[in-house]
Amino acid sequence: MDIAILGYGTVGSGTVNVLTRNRELIAEDSGEVLRIKAILDLKDFPGDPYEERIVHQFEDIVNDPTIEVVAETMGGLHPAFEYVSKLLEAGKSVVTSNKDLVAAYGEQLLEIAAAHAVDFFYEASVGGGIPIMRMINECMIQERIYEIMAILNGTTNYILTEMEEEGASFEEALEDAQELGYAEQNPESDVEGMDPARKLAILSTHAFCVDVDWTQIERRGITHITPDDIAIAKAIDHHIKLVARSRMVGSRLFASVEPMLLPEDHKLAQIEDVYNSIMIKGNMLDDITVQGKGAGSLPTGSAVAADLIMAAINKKDHVTSTTYHEYAKVKPESFSSLGQTYMLRTDKSVSMPQEGIISGIQVDHIHAYFTKQLKSQELRDLIQQLEIRGVQVLSCLVMEQEDLSVNR
Amino acid sequence: MDIAILGYGTVGSGTVNVLTRNRELIAEDSGEVLRIKAILDLKDFPGDPYEERIVHQFEDIVNDPTIEVVAETMGGLHPAFEYVSKLLEAGKSVVTSNKDLVAAYGEQLLEIAAAHAVDFFYEASVGGGIPIMRMINECMIQERIYEIMAILNGTTNYILTEMEEEGASFEEALEDAQELGYAEQNPESDVEGMDPARKLAILSTHAFCVDVDWTQIERRGITHITPDDIAIAKAIDHHIKLVARSRMVGSRLFASVEPMLLPEDHKLAQIEDVYNSIMIKGNMLDDITVQGKGAGSLPTGSAVAADLIMAAINKKDHVTSTTYHEYAKVKPESFSSLGQTYMLRTDKSVSMPQEGIISGIQVDHIHAYFTKQLKSQELRDLIQQLEIRGVQVLSCLVMEQEDLSVNR
Repeated sequence: MDIAILGYGTVGSGTVNVLTRNRELIAEDSGEVLRIKAILDLKDFPGDPYEERIVHQFEDIVNDPTIEVVAETMGGLHPAFEYVSKLLEAGKSVVTSNKDLVAAYGEQLLEIAAAHAVDFFYEASVGGGIPIMRMINECMIQERIYEIMAILNGTTNYILTEMEEEGASFEEALEDAQELGYAEQNPESDVEGMDPARKLAILSTHAFCVDVDWTQIERRGITHITPDDIAIAKAIDHHIKLVARSRMVGSRLFASVEPMLLPEDHKLAQIEDVYNSIMIKGNMLDDITVQGKGAGSLPTGSAVAADLIMAAINKKDHVTSTTYHEYAKVKPESFSSLGQTYMLRTDKSVSMPQEGIISGIQVDHIHAYFTKQLKSQELRDLIQQLEIRGVQVLSCLVMEQEDLSVNR
Repeated sequence: MDIAILGYGTVGSGTVNVLTRNRELIAEDSGEVLRIKAILDLKDFPGDPYEERIVHQFEDIVNDPTIEVVAETMGGLHPAFEYVSKLLEAGKSVVTSNKDLVAAYGEQLLEIAAAHAVDFFYEASVGGGIPIMRMINECMIQERIYEIMAILNGTTNYILTEMEEEGASFEEALEDAQELGYAEQNPESDVEGMDPARKLAILSTHAFCVDVDWTQIERRGITHITPDDIAIAKAIDHHIKLVARSRMVGSRLFASVEPMLLPEDHKLAQIEDVYNSIMIKGNMLDDITVQGKGAGSLPTGSAVAADLIMAAINKKDHVTSTTYHEYAKVKPESFSSLGQTYMLRTDKSVSMPQEGIISGIQVDHIHAYFTKQLKSQELRDLIQQLEIRGVQVLSCLVMEQEDLSVNR
């Protein structure tokens, strides 16, 4: 079957690599030979094995009736959205690694795909090489999923791991990550949590069957995390991770992306470097946790290749796995309204007792206090109380506690 | 669509529970309503909601043309094999949770299914609620999988966790597990490693595309693990786990089920109680690790339900996902021939230097020594040498080391 690829960058070239290097086993396992007929890119690639297949006009692909499946690995919203729409409308199945596109236009593109009886897959848009979308859409179709808790951004996880292991400051660890190519020159989307918020919205939409707008997810980044926070975490055998989580309670959706203190034995606490990990709770099978490389040319290209193969098999069989449901829009609420426990790092010691604080710890010059379960207003009151007593709260981190809301 | 279930025991009733309790969302997500038309069991179930659907004759199911998909959850080899064969030959798709059946007759049943253009799925036969078969067969179809390392038996993992956390002896922990229903009255299949060896053979066959006879997998159980071994493991920040692993090196297959010492930060080291965890390495996406409940009525029933739904969707679409390949038989070799490092616990201290031993540790009255990488003959020689010097080796455990064989 003839296929095409839009964009010959990191993910596009990873996809080509996977299809080329594993060509024989793919043909054997799937019964389909995928021929890369065209690769759309602005640039030429002289000397590249696929040099002759590079095209510069989108029309060369959309108007080619022999091309049946296309991978979009360009990134960005435009013209990715227009290209993908036109391809689907032309009866081609499309797979994408583009989380910006799926977070913004996923539902719309699924509707177009379903209307034209083609597939629209986006496994690689979340979790790199982790097959999480297929797990949710096929393997957990029998489950009422009610909670997701995940590390979805390798860049920030690398930075936090560096801060923890090397004692680096945020700025130093970011610089390291940029030198290694793990972080972009403009790292805002990662370190401010926009990237994991988009991925969390994609996961939550399909796990909970609700329409989630990623921009409405409460979001805090890691730029304010200091070595003092890391030192406190270590002293109490915890790790600081940028956690994306969401939970359905009845018809209410709670969601956030924020740094959290996780106890050592928590399933997400040990995830290091550029790994991602996703824990999903279903009402019948309890929790499933899956971890793997969340980014990188080959892991992400591998997920794109898996989607291409499944789309090609469906094309051959004249079926699709893509369905469109119009989900109800829900506005994500903050977990803080449910009540959470916090670590408050302060500039000086607090004379106890202090309503709301259970215990404290001092490590060298660093003071930290641990609260009982507080709702948002109670937390604000506590911080104000401390200020009145002359104590400044330098940082405030949510602590993981057992899921108390049973929702089966 | 009408379906039937063979066997109304732990897994069968779990399956019925999942299909009943999540009936609406399954219908909504899959577009298929699964009606349980018949449940085959020897017993009656007076008062059960499905009392009227219980049948005692297999013929009532195989001869009913309205039943299109059947779940086999009886267990055992016979008559399970005959029933499943006849159902497939009658044009019904079959899903099973029966690892004994799949390990012994899986390839034969796949061949029958493919010949009759129906599906034969067995997600629930390995890893309980963990969707590992679909991950291997669909999500990793683009990968050359070259290694599997897994905890596949919840009973032994529970026993080892108890020994570690409560300081219990093997016998005490086994008794606890039996009281809680985690271990059977005849625990041989679990504690001697037959159960994980069957599961490893099923996984390896499909991951590596070779025909693996589970009875030929090198296998050691956990009955000889003592509190002294656990104490040494703790002293060096390791955990003892019953590990099932297999690796392709060229066309050679290495496989074993045996207790291993895993360092604290190993992905399988933190798996506790009745959880299973499976790490798979592919040549493009590196490693993926998935963990979840490896047994139990609802988790396993959930996996059976997922298979039933996928088979029903395929039936409706007049397609199958089941393919049959005649794989070459390979005889699994022992990892010990590759060279491994070992912990040797001895009855007294060894005067150093001793060829082959790198270091030693003493904890109270317990002596343990750590070897350099040794092949099987070298290990035998070392043990003999120690005996000549009057030192008895009380236990010998493999230690996990980084995968040195690059096989991409």
